[in-house]
Amino acid sequence: PKTKLPKVGTTIFTVMSQLAMEHQAVNLGQGFPDFAVPDLLVEALDRAMRAGHNQYAPMTGIPALRQAIASKTERVYGWRPNADTEVTVTSGATEAIFDAIHAVVHAGEEVVVLDPCYDCYEPAIELAEAKAVHVALDPQTFAPDWQKVRAAITPRTRMLMINSPHNPSGAMLSADDMQAVASILRDNPDVFLLSDEVYEHIVFDGARHESVLRYPELRARAFIVSSFGKTYHCTGWKVGYCIAPPALSAEFRKVHQYNTFCTFAPAQHAFAEMIEQDPAHYLELGAFYQAKRDRFAAQLRETRLKPLPVPGGYFQLVDYSAVSDLDDLAFCRWLTTEHGVAAIPLSPFYESPPAGQRLARLCFAKNDATLDAAMARLRKL
Amino acid sequence: PKTKLPKVGTTIFTVMSQLAMEHQAVNLGQGFPDFAVPDLLVEALDRAMRAGHNQYAPMTGIPALRQAIASKTERVYGWRPNADTEVTVTSGATEAIFDAIHAVVHAGEEVVVLDPCYDCYEPAIELAEAKAVHVALDPQTFAPDWQKVRAAITPRTRMLMINSPHNPSGAMLSADDMQAVASILRDNPDVFLLSDEVYEHIVFDGARHESVLRYPELRARAFIVSSFGKTYHCTGWKVGYCIAPPALSAEFRKVHQYNTFCTFAPAQHAFAEMIEQDPAHYLELGAFYQAKRDRFAAQLRETRLKPLPVPGGYFQLVDYSAVSDLDDLAFCRWLTTEHGVAAIPLSPFYESPPAGQRLARLCFAKNDATLDAAMARLRKL
Ligand SMILES: CSCCC(=O)C(=O)O
Ligand SMILES: CSCCC(=O)C(=O)O
Repeated sequence: PKTKLPKVGTTIFTVMSQLAMEHQAVNLGQGFPDFAVPDLLVEALDRAMRAGHNQYAPMTGIPALRQAIASKTERVYGWRPNADTEVTVTSGATEAIFDAIHAVVHAGEEVVVLDPCYDCYEPAIELAEAKAVHVALDPQTFAPDWQKVRAAITPRTRMLMINSPHNPSGAMLSADDMQAVASILRDNPDVFLLSDEVYEHIVFDGARHESVLRYPELRARAFIVSSFGKTYHCTGWKVGYCIAPPALSAEFRKVHQYNTFCTFAPAQHAFAEMIEQDPAHYLELGAFYQAKRDRFAAQLRETRLKPLPVPGGYFQLVDYSAVSDLDDLAFCRWLTTEHGVAAIPLSPFYESPPAGQRLARLCFAKNDATLDAAMARLRKL
Repeated sequence: PKTKLPKVGTTIFTVMSQLAMEHQAVNLGQGFPDFAVPDLLVEALDRAMRAGHNQYAPMTGIPALRQAIASKTERVYGWRPNADTEVTVTSGATEAIFDAIHAVVHAGEEVVVLDPCYDCYEPAIELAEAKAVHVALDPQTFAPDWQKVRAAITPRTRMLMINSPHNPSGAMLSADDMQAVASILRDNPDVFLLSDEVYEHIVFDGARHESVLRYPELRARAFIVSSFGKTYHCTGWKVGYCIAPPALSAEFRKVHQYNTFCTFAPAQHAFAEMIEQDPAHYLELGAFYQAKRDRFAAQLRETRLKPLPVPGGYFQLVDYSAVSDLDDLAFCRWLTTEHGVAAIPLSPFYESPPAGQRLARLCFAKNDATLDAAMARLRKL
């Protein structure tokens, strides 16, 4: 029988992490920190497990965690979702994105995505037997052209996906962008919004993260997805969540309850404690990563790689055109195998990558020692 | 827009657990043990977390766990799957079932399920925009009628789902059943098998679990799904797995990698240790639960509820027709609210429940004290 996902191979993250391992490269490819998880979180998980919180959690998430997410949302974005009807805990943001798509997108419909975009969007859309309609972001600034987005919407469009801070570029949507999205939704009452905000707390230079959660008109039509993996340095714990209005949360939960049902229970207790007891952690995360970004970019400027501006997130794009004419996939393989630094090419994030784009993505969510080791190698380019 | 899962409400397990909580009922409804997780598992998880295994696991599962699953499969079923190409770790068996369906079932196709069946099957099929075709098991013995199954297969059928030991009845498929399945698959080369074996180690009276893993002809066409939740008393840890031949595993992994990507990493290390260091645990699980089953059934025989035979699993069906004329949903609500014992009705496991069936499901995966407390209430019926 014909395959369901003909275009899909192994993810570029898995491919590059494997290559990095085989060649003992410093892995600045797949996005994960090499810092320790906060002690409070480890101790709280341990306590929850030993206290016997080891059976099914409620499928929506434990009440304490949903309340903590609601409180945090209010503290940061000035609006409190209803923890009972609007917050659902998932096995990572990836599951939340998958569930949101499957909750509302029918076979034959369309979802507008902005390229480059994270690689899980399109396969999830295809599994819903729907079609991803790709609109390119500006190849230099990664800003959306809302006229193009508007033009891509058809009567079959069921969803528009946005992502800020943006992976892979770090670009952030502005308040004007949010007004443009609101205007598009106003003119297209059957289109839902899916907002991927997993890097919400990693924003720089005093900028404000324009979360959809701040905008009543937008959040009334949106699934807002985030995760604890990036915020608490534990990408392998796989706990995320979705905030959506009651009617959308109800549909979302139908999918979630038959997809994974619920999420590793002891970690839910741990995150509930962590969020309430140490709000400074996420409030200070921007400053923590800004120092890393600045140190890393300064070092890169001494190499033949040209760092692009990074408004948010923990990825640094570099223009390698002074170093090599290879396409980005070949360049990243070469950088990994010949120079011992693993990077992620941008072309897998596109339906059709801009011709001649010479960009690679480096993850700076690493200890200084790791970044220094990478830099020692990159200086030789 | 029209909803994707019009038939779906909150699961009966969530509904009855909430009702149990509101009425301080002894909860023998939703299937989860109230025993402690084995110490070895708790300590190993703690060690893994403190050793820093907190970032993304490989999307297929950590190699040590896939190897441990392969070794266990060989020890128990006499055949060793390839850990690299045939074993994939998932966020519980529910995710594995969802992924297997989405890996091969296209919109407009059909999946044959045997009623009563676990409630996640049909919604997963519907989300693939396919159709569940229901074939009733024998209302007394819960044995399949393979002639009926054969007759239900059409050119659109893409999958047959089986489940042994069976939830909710505990019925087990025999070697003859497996031959019948093989014969059906032989005659229908485009049909895959999905075998839900989460109660594989909970079998009684010296019976042998007829795992699909024992049958080369069957396993060449099958997704075999299991989980650690039932085996290790940790339903809230949500780690399961799927064994399937390389070509099917490849399709399965495409879905898995864009659904949850990977599973809580520290628990994977813990299960790898546990499986290797304490094989006695799962080998002795049948005897452990058989003692509970026998004690519980003996006590039930002193009440007006009539226990049915339980070949496997940790659920006891009872015929309540001597007690009440209510339909099963009403009876289970009444039992919970008026008599303080939560049970699960069977009708939600059916497309059309047999008329006049008066059965309820009680979970005996509980400490003797819990079962005794329930029994003190059930004796008053
Ligand atoms: C799930 S592996 C990819 C991790 C990630 O978010 C990234 O590198 O972009
Ligand atoms: C996921 S909640 C349901 C648990 C279970 O397997 C059952 O009670 O049948």
